[in-house]
Formats: sequence, C-alpha cells, structure tokens
Amino acid sequence: MKNKIKVAVLGATGFTGEMLVEILLDHPKVEVTYLASRTPNAIPYHKIFPRFYKKTDLLCENLNLDKAAKNSDIIFLTLPHTVSMSVVPQLLKEKRKIIDLSADYRIKNLKDYKKYYKIPHKDKINLKKAVYGLPEINKDLIPNTDIIANPGCYPTSVILALFPLLKEGLIEDKVIVDAKSSITGAGRKAVIDYHYSNISDNIWAYKPFIHQHTPEILSILKENTARDIDLTFVPHVVGVDAGIYSTIYITFKNKISKIEVTKIYNKYYKNCTFIRLLESLPKLKNVIGTNFCDIGFALNSNGKDCVLASSIDNLIKGAAGAAIQNMNIMQGWPESLGLL
Amino acid sequence: MKNKIKVAVLGATGFTGEMLVEILLDHPKVEVTYLASRTPNAIPYHKIFPRFYKKTDLLCENLNLDKAAKNSDIIFLTLPHTVSMSVVPQLLKEKRKIIDLSADYRIKNLKDYKKYYKIPHKDKINLKKAVYGLPEINKDLIPNTDIIANPGCYPTSVILALFPLLKEGLIEDKVIVDAKSSITGAGRKAVIDYHYSNISDNIWAYKPFIHQHTPEILSILKENTARDIDLTFVPHVVGVDAGIYSTIYITFKNKISKIEVTKIYNKYYKNCTFIRLLESLPKLKNVIGTNFCDIGFALNSNGKDCVLASSIDNLIKGAAGAAIQNMNIMQGWPESLGLL
Amino acid sequence: MKNKIKVAVLGATGFTGEMLVEILLDHPKVEVTYLASRTPNAIPYHKIFPRFYKKTDLLCENLNLDKAAKNSDIIFLTLPHTVSMSVVPQLLKEKRKIIDLSADYRIKNLKDYKKYYKIPHKDKINLKKAVYGLPEINKDLIPNTDIIANPGCYPTSVILALFPLLKEGLIEDKVIVDAKSSITGAGRKAVIDYHYSNISDNIWAYKPFIHQHTPEILSILKENTARDIDLTFVPHVVGVDAGIYSTIYITFKNKISKIEVTKIYNKYYKNCTFIRLLESLPKLKNVIGTNFCDIGFALNSNGKDCVLASSIDNLIKGAAGAAIQNMNIMQGWPESLGLL
Amino acid sequence: MKNKIKVAVLGATGFTGEMLVEILLDHPKVEVTYLASRTPNAIPYHKIFPRFYKKTDLLCENLNLDKAAKNSDIIFLTLPHTVSMSVVPQLLKEKRKIIDLSADYRIKNLKDYKKYYKIPHKDKINLKKAVYGLPEINKDLIPNTDIIANPGCYPTSVILALFPLLKEGLIEDKVIVDAKSSITGAGRKAVIDYHYSNISDNIWAYKPFIHQHTPEILSILKENTARDIDLTFVPHVVGVDAGIYSTIYITFKNKISKIEVTKIYNKYYKNCTFIRLLESLPKLKNVIGTNFCDIGFALNSNGKDCVLASSIDNLIKGAAGAAIQNMNIMQGWPESLGLL
Repeated sequence: MKNKIKVAVLGATGFTGEMLVEILLDHPKVEVTYLASRTPNAIPYHKIFPRFYKKTDLLCENLNLDKAAKNSDIIFLTLPHTVSMSVVPQLLKEKRKIIDLSADYRIKNLKDYKKYYKIPHKDKINLKKAVYGLPEINKDLIPNTDIIANPGCYPTSVILALFPLLKEGLIEDKVIVDAKSSITGAGRKAVIDYHYSNISDNIWAYKPFIHQHTPEILSILKENTARDIDLTFVPHVVGVDAGIYSTIYITFKNKISKIEVTKIYNKYYKNCTFIRLLESLPKLKNVIGTNFCDIGFALNSNGKDCVLASSIDNLIKGAAGAAIQNMNIMQGWPESLGLL
Repeated sequence: MKNKIKVAVLGATGFTGEMLVEILLDHPKVEVTYLASRTPNAIPYHKIFPRFYKKTDLLCENLNLDKAAKNSDIIFLTLPHTVSMSVVPQLLKEKRKIIDLSADYRIKNLKDYKKYYKIPHKDKINLKKAVYGLPEINKDLIPNTDIIANPGCYPTSVILALFPLLKEGLIEDKVIVDAKSSITGAGRKAVIDYHYSNISDNIWAYKPFIHQHTPEILSILKENTARDIDLTFVPHVVGVDAGIYSTIYITFKNKISKIEVTKIYNKYYKNCTFIRLLESLPKLKNVIGTNFCDIGFALNSNGKDCVLASSIDNLIKGAAGAAIQNMNIMQGWPESLGLL
Repeated sequence: MKNKIKVAVLGATGFTGEMLVEILLDHPKVEVTYLASRTPNAIPYHKIFPRFYKKTDLLCENLNLDKAAKNSDIIFLTLPHTVSMSVVPQLLKEKRKIIDLSADYRIKNLKDYKKYYKIPHKDKINLKKAVYGLPEINKDLIPNTDIIANPGCYPTSVILALFPLLKEGLIEDKVIVDAKSSITGAGRKAVIDYHYSNISDNIWAYKPFIHQHTPEILSILKENTARDIDLTFVPHVVGVDAGIYSTIYITFKNKISKIEVTKIYNKYYKNCTFIRLLESLPKLKNVIGTNFCDIGFALNSNGKDCVLASSIDNLIKGAAGAAIQNMNIMQGWPESLGLL
Repeated sequence: MKNKIKVAVLGATGFTGEMLVEILLDHPKVEVTYLASRTPNAIPYHKIFPRFYKKTDLLCENLNLDKAAKNSDIIFLTLPHTVSMSVVPQLLKEKRKIIDLSADYRIKNLKDYKKYYKIPHKDKINLKKAVYGLPEINKDLIPNTDIIANPGCYPTSVILALFPLLKEGLIEDKVIVDAKSSITGAGRKAVIDYHYSNISDNIWAYKPFIHQHTPEILSILKENTARDIDLTFVPHVVGVDAGIYSTIYITFKNKISKIEVTKIYNKYYKNCTFIRLLESLPKLKNVIGTNFCDIGFALNSNGKDCVLASSIDNLIKGAAGAAIQNMNIMQGWPESLGLL
C-alpha cells in the first residue's frame, strides 16, 4: 500500500457514504483508513452492508475527529447538513484536506443559508475559502483549496445544462426546471413516506419554488456567468431506484440553430470527460452506475423555445463520484481515475 | 338482464379495451354483448386475459361490423387511430351510439389531423358532428350526439387543470407542460422499447414540441375559452405501472392569492364528481384505480408564478373511465354510475 | 341508509384497515359508522389517506371501545397481534359481532400461541368459541359464531391449495412451501428495512422453518382433514406492490393423472366463487385487486411429484376481502356481495 | 495497447453480450477488437447502446467469422443456443480460444441435448473437448482447453450451493429448487410477455420439471460428485431488474450442526474469491452488479431439513462475469482480474 493516499469517510452509513466507500475501495491511488458514523461500538462495515463482505474488513467506528485526522490525508464528510460546519474547523486546523458533501460550504450568502437550512452559519472563515467542486466549471480553483464544497445533486444536473448557454448570454431570464429524482436523494431514513409502498409506482412534486437547492443553483450560476436568472425549480420524487432527470425549459433571445447550440456546448465541454452531449434527449438509465452527466436538447421549430434534459446518477455524479473527481483534481491525478 | 342497455367493445384486447371491459362488466345498467378484435377465431375473453376467468364467459370475436351493430345499442371503439374513422360511418348509419377512444374525431382541423396522424381524414361529415367528451367542460353537448370523441389521456390531465384559469383570462399565454406517463399509454405492443428492462427504473422525455396531443390540447382549449395559448408540451415515459402526472407552469397576469385561485376552480368544478381540488400538490398513486382527476397548485411568493399539477389514471379517467362517464351522461344516468 | 348494518373498523390506518374501509364504503348493505386508530385527535380519514377524498367524510378517532360498541353492529379488528385479545371480551359482552384480522383467535393451542407470539393468551374462553373464517373450508360454522378469526395471508394461500388433496389422503406427509410476498404483509411501519431502496429489485427468504404462520397452517389443516403434515415453510419478501405467490411441492402416494387431480379440486371447490382452478400455473398479477385465489398445478412425468401454485392479493383475499366475505356469510347475504 | 490480448464478442447486442463488452472494456489485460451481431451495416456500438458513448468507439459489425478469427485471440460467443455449434468448429480450426455462453457445449449427453434444444447436436467432436467453465468446481481443467462451455445462470446458482454437500455424500436424493429470476435471463426479445406491464409487480412459475437447465444441473453434479439426485426444478419470473435467487430444499441423511455445514462449505470454497458463505440467508440486491455468488443456509431444529439460498447477478456471475473469470484462468491471470 506504499505511496497511497490515506482517506477517511465520516458519515459512512448514508447512501452517499456507502457509494463513496464502494468507489474508493477500487481507486488505485488511495487507501481507505477510517470509516465513521454514529454507532456505539465499532463494527465491521460489511456487517452493516453485507454487499461489502469479502471486499473490505474495515470497521465502522464511532466518529472521533482526532482519530480521523490522525489516520488520513483527505477526509470526505457525508454528514448531515449543519453538522459538517461544526467539524470542519478542527480538521482544517490539522491540515487535512476536506471534501464536504453536505450543503454547508456551498452557499456564500449567509442569509440564504439561514433561510434554507434554518440555523445561522457557524464557520464563516472557511466558508469564504471553500471552492464549489464542479470541475466542469471551475477546475482551476480546485487544486488550490483545502476545502471543497461538493455540489448538490439537483444543482449538478441543472447547472451543467445551463452554464454554457447562460455564460454566452443567449437565453432569456425565465428558466423553468422540472426535476425528477429517486428517493435516495433524501437520505437513508426510516420514515413512512419512504416506505416501499409509498414510492413504488408513485410520482409527486414537492417543495415547489422553495427547495433548498434553488439558492445554490442561482448563486453558482451568478458567480460563474455574472448573470441572474428568474428560476422556477420544482423537484419531483419518482419511483426509480436511482438517478435525477432534469427537464429545463428556456427561451433563446434570438433564433438559433441546432448546430449553433451544439457548438456552444462543445466550446465549454469538449474536454470534459464526464459530460456527454447527445443528439437527442437522454434516457435516465444510461447514466445509472456511472459518473456521466448526459445532456440533450430539442429546439422548437420557432428556433427559440428549447427544452434541455440532463441526467445523472444522483449518488455518483450527483455526490460520491463528483467528490472523487474533485479529489483526483486536488491531487493532480487524472480526473477520471477510479471512475470509469 | 331485462332493461339493460347492450354494449359492444371493438378493439377489446388493448390496454384500454381491457380496462373498459372490466368496468363495463360491473356496471349496473349495461350488458356487454359483443367483444371484438383482430383474431382468426373467436376465443373466450378470459383465455386472452386470465384475470377475467369466472368474471365473464364472453367470446372475443374477429371484428364484424354487422354483428357489432346488430348486437348492441352503444359501441365503444378502442381501435387504433386512423382505423376508427373507417368504421364509424357504417355504425352511425345503423343508428348506433358511438364512443370512440381513438384520436380520429377529436381534432376538427383537417390539416392538423393530417400533420399529426399522417393520413387525410376520411369522415369529415361525422367529424363535424362529434362531441369532445370531456364532461367537466361540455357536459351539455354530450346527451345530444351519437358520436363522442373520447379525450386523449394527456389532454384530459392538462385541459382540466388549465381550463378555469384560462377561461377567466387570468394567465399569460406562455404555458409549459411537463407530463409524465406510464408506458401503458403507448398501447400493448411487442416492441423492444417497452421491454421491462428498458422501462423499469427509467425516465425519458420524447417527442418534445411535436407530440400529437399538442393540437388536441390547443384546439379544445380554444373552442371552450376562445383563447390561444403558447404551449410547450413535453411528455416523459416513467417506469410506473399506471398513471399520468402533468406538471404545468403558468404565470398569472396579475398578482393573485391562493384563496382566489381556489375560488376559481370551485366556480367551475364544484359539482364535478371526479375532480378533486387539493390543498397541496397531488401524488400520483392516489388516483390509480379511480376515475378521479386530482388537481393541486402552488403559488410562488411573488403571487404570479404558479405550478399546477394534475394526475389521473391514464387508462381510467384518461380513457375507459371517461368513456363510461360519457355513456352515463348520454343515457341520462348518474354520471358516476359504475365508476365509484 | 335505512336497513343498513353499521360497521366499525378498529385499527383503520394500517394497510389492512385501509383496504377494509375501501371495500366497505362500496358495500351495498353496510354503513361504515366508526373508524378508530391511535391518534390524539379525531381527523378526517381522507386527511390521512388523500385517496379517500370525496369518497368519505368519516373521521378517524382515537380508539374508544364504548363508542365502537355503541355505534356498530359488526366490528372489524385490524389491531396488532396480542392487542385484539384485550378488546374482544368487552365487545362480545356488548353483543357485537367481531371479525378479528389479527392472529389472536386463529390458533387454539395455547403453547403454540405463546411460542410464536411471545406472550400467554389472555382470552381463553372466546378463543374456544372463535371460528376460523376460511369459508371455502368451514362455511357452515361461520353463521353461528360471534367471533371470527380471519385467516392469515400466507395460510389462506397454502391451506386452500393443500386442503382437497390432503383431505382425500392422497399426498405424502412431506410438504414444502416456498412463499413469496409483497412487503405490505408486514404492516405499515417506518423501519429502514422497508425503505423503497431495500425492497425494490430485491428478494430474500426470512424466518425459515419458524414463521408464525407455520402453526396456523398445520393446526387448521389438522382440524379439517384429521391429518398431519411435515411442513417446511419458507416465506420470501419480493419487490412487488401487492400479493402472495405460494409454490408448494408435494408428492402423491400413488401415480395420479392431471384429470384426477382436477376432479378432486372441483369436488371441493366447484361452488366456491372465489377459487379459480387454472389449467396451468397462475400469474400473480391476475389476482391483484380481487378476492380470488388462483390455484394451478403441474405434475411431473412420473405422475407423483407435483408442484402447486396459489396466488392471492395479500390485502384482499389474504385479509380485508376475506373479512368481508365472512361478514356476508355471517349475515346470510350472498358471499360475494361487494367483492366483485 | 501493447501486450494486450485481443478479444471478440460475437452476439454483442443481447443482454449478455452487452454486459460482456462493458466488463471487457475495463479489463486491464485485454483489448476488445471485434464486436459482431446480425446487423446489415456496421454501426458504432454506442449508437445501439447509448450508455457506451464516450466509453468506446468500436463498431458493431455484421458477423463474419474470418474477420473475427483474424482480429482476436479469444472469442466470446453470446449467440443463441444451436447457433454456437455451427461456428465453433471453424473458429477452433483457426486456433482461437472460445468461451461459449450458449448451452451448446454444456451437456455431453446427446439425447438430452436433442430433447431440450429440439435439434440434434452438430459438433460432437468439440463437445467432447469442451470444459464446463465453473471454476469453483473444476478450475484445473480450464487452463487446458480451447473451448469453454460457460455455465447457465440457474445452474451456476444451484450447483454452487449443492456441490459440497453432495460431494460429501451428506444429503438425501430428493432435492427441490425454487428459483426466481429477472426476465433478462430470457434474452432481449420483443415479445408481449416481456412488456413492462406484464413483468412489473408480477411473479409466476414456468416450465415446472421441464426447464432446459434441469439436465445441465444433473449432469454437471453427476460428473463432479459421481452422485445422482432426484431434482425438482421450478423456475419463476419475478419483476426485478436483475438477478437470480435460488431457494433449495434438502434433507441431510444424518443430523448435522450449523458448524459442521459451515466447515464443509469452507473446505471446498475457502479459496474461492467469488463465493461468499453468509451466516444467514442472502438478499438478492447484495450481489447485483458483482461477480459474487452469496450462499446461506438454515437448518430446521431437527438438524436434518435444511434450506439453502444462493443468489447471483444472472448477467454477471450467471453469464458475462463467469466468462471473464474463465478467460482469466485460461490465460493464467488472477481469477478476479477486471471483476472486482
């Protein structure tokens, strides 16, 4: 195991933590050294998740920050929102690199944070330093930070589809996003709403206009394009095992052709390993189990109205895969290492 | 069986025909007397669909129009689009009442028909007489016709949600509909795209801007509200067993309150048995197996941007249930007979 | 509502209680007068289950035995096992008829009850009086009791398939049952094991040899055939929305033909509305939403080894539908009233 | 790409062929050089399966044996049963190594082959040479052959569970297998039975006693243990995305303990990377996406009746994964290369 970087996962028993461990175990340049969660006694990780039997003998321990810092070079945080910001300061002080998968370091605006996450932000200093880890947009900043705010799942699918068109100033302000997600995006919780019987064969919209990912989408697009949009964001729960499918309704300011739209996407994404621009609208299942974001679009015959569709595996490109992509870039490794 | 009206179902082996037979068999005022399809030999219907065993001994015969007319008072047509219009003239000549579940008599505009269904319309005379069978909107016309054009599944969900607001002239022209449907809406066909493995856990948008239900939505709304809308209609296939969930994005011309919107819906629908106006956005599963259309809405804090959601069982309120509701009204029976 | 029998459902918020209310609301001879559950305040039932909106305005109240008795002629108990027996004595004292859907009055053997349900039985007097409500086997006893023990879901599927063959003394002792069930059979509980993600696309065997329905199957068969079997019962959870599919492996003592087996089933079941003997093995989906039990069998070419398969909707014929069938028989109504 | 072995996949558009391509593309020691199917014109593989976009630019060509032989060292055949045996002779003559995923080289008994596959075997010479590629049982033979008969999916799950106990002579002859499979095992075919609506939420038993995998299970067990069993094999289709779950009912000749059974499995499998002996019965989802076979068992309190359960991903350990495991062993590479 010489020359391998040591990594820890804090919050290893959620859906995202589990996916992170799965990918990290197969990553050629890292050694997973510490897994933690809220658990009275350390137990083998494969006793919690039997599918890891014969893949790892690691224990999942009760979270201890000193131990985490001592045993790792890079620390992934898959802790609940508002918990991450209480542990990051200590870990950064100990010179560890942090990739935080919670929402705590994504939104720079303190009012928005308080409005959507219900408590005031507790770590303003590091919030300023944190880099939003969406490599397709700000790859250059990632190697130079010790704290990555890993993007939310919905924002990843929405921002990647909108960014090039918005950056070029081609679209009207009004943008409507109808997003469909697997329930795994809501976390592994024992609530009656997530009972098989309530999800299977079901579809419903929730938190219309007020979902906490709305300010994330707006602020990241603003930071990176200097433009505002008038966003309607309506997420839906759909009875699928995994994935997010975002259908996005935009209007071009001027008549445009399919070829021109394609050129713009290629201008920004042609070197992006994990973006696949399709000739038609994507199907969700094609990205499941991968770190790809598939993007397609269809223009109305008027050349102005346009529908974009963007699909990702919400636990991979929407969480754990993106986190590893960020780690690869921080370390100067090939972006796709361990992800193909 | 005295005093019962005799009904026939032509096209009894599709998803819609099957649902129609199921509901008709339990209807207190009708006797199913003739089932037909394309089949070389007459066979017991329960041999085709074993779930009808011990519920009916009826045969499914090879389609014979004379026999259909001779054996029934009301004829339901669940034939493919473009086939219905080749059989309707003869059946009407024999003084039968027709409820046609194909698209053939829904669109009055001949150019639109040809554009979307690829062949010229063959029965212009009866096309003019046909009444669009959406009772919540034009209940008065239904008793006075012999030919009902039963609404399409997507149009039912979309028109019912939009009609009151459009009729009152409250909303901007631009309307976006993101509709999600079970694959059963596409008919019972042995194609690889409908293989379990392609549908399960999958989502995809199809026919953006160009779906054949677009002109149906536009023309019916125009006829009934005298208003045009600028419609973007994007249907999606979703891996659910049944149902349609249409999410509709509109903007009110002037700031409005939740109470006012509720009042408008109540003004039009308070006597409609099968419309349920909810206090929040609907969940698909609540309408499955029923003839209800659940409608909910959410207003943005600006009081103008609004999302409507409308859900139906695509084979019941979106097809067979609506057809029976139409029959009930044609016959002067209670609208909900056999449907609750 | 004159001449209607008044019925109450105690435990109206479980899967079974919900299904019971749904069927009872459409039953022509009863009026639902009281719904109760554990709930601090009475709330409209359709606020708990929005699919009942516009179908009933009944409240669901906090369980009060006096009120239940006062307001009803027949009381359905869909309470947890071990709770039923604490309320039955009072309700019987008040001369109400009881249909208990828990396990409390199914097993006459007190040791078995304690072994499988972990506490001693508290109501031995009424236990003796209770009739096991499987009408296909003991229809004659049902009209003469005030307390029906409604059969378990697995036992219904297994006993109905085995009874005629065992009664005739045709099969070897060794019987293996491999049963597959929807998770709804386990009740509406907020536990992580029933999370969508754990059930969808999953299959597993549980409680092999030791499931609590084992003594129920054995004792009911013994009571009704005077024969013992050597039963291996292994239930499985399968990611389906509803239903039980029991595959049963038996050996005939002597070579037998398909025709002879068919004759035996017909001897016992030819007048049973809800049993459908098929010419081949059943498919689960054909019974979903119905009160039917579909039974099929296949004989090996040796004429001795045989596989039976039996499928039911676990919440209907396996619970609520059977309860209503029992009520119909108790009241002298047609067995299938409200159930077709 | 120096030093990489060249591999071809003939029949690359079935479920198994697709999975094989997916795993081979990530395998560190091979280069996929030729993909073929029945297709009039060569087209990019990712045009057929969009999920391969940006993963491979390979064409899928119309099958040409000369070209296949010329361009590859090892050839995987995922052709339909009875087709493989018409191409194997030529390919072996050209000194290629063959891994055949059809049934053509699995059963040595010519009468059984004809009985179950409906035509006489056409390649008796190579049939004799072919090695049944189940490495956990006959690893030693695999490196010394040029033609591997890759095991069937059901037989893999059943043989692996039974082999150690049968080899030791511990169990009675009578063995009952109740197997549950995803519909993907039946191949990618456009038939109405595999329509989403027929599979979703459905379960059914098929081909009881007469499934074509029955002689495969019997003959392979006989060859490797010199023992006969009296097998009842009843497969079921279940509405799950992937996987096989086989529940196996056996009786030990003499009373045995859990520890003793565990010891026997460990004796045979302790060095088998892909077998996981569990302390309880397996859950299907834990093996999906992996090459593992999970085996668990439960003993009745009598110490004799026993239920085994064995689960695999039918397209991986039951087909493509096993084929690659065989390739690894043939080439002298680590058995698990590219499979973890």
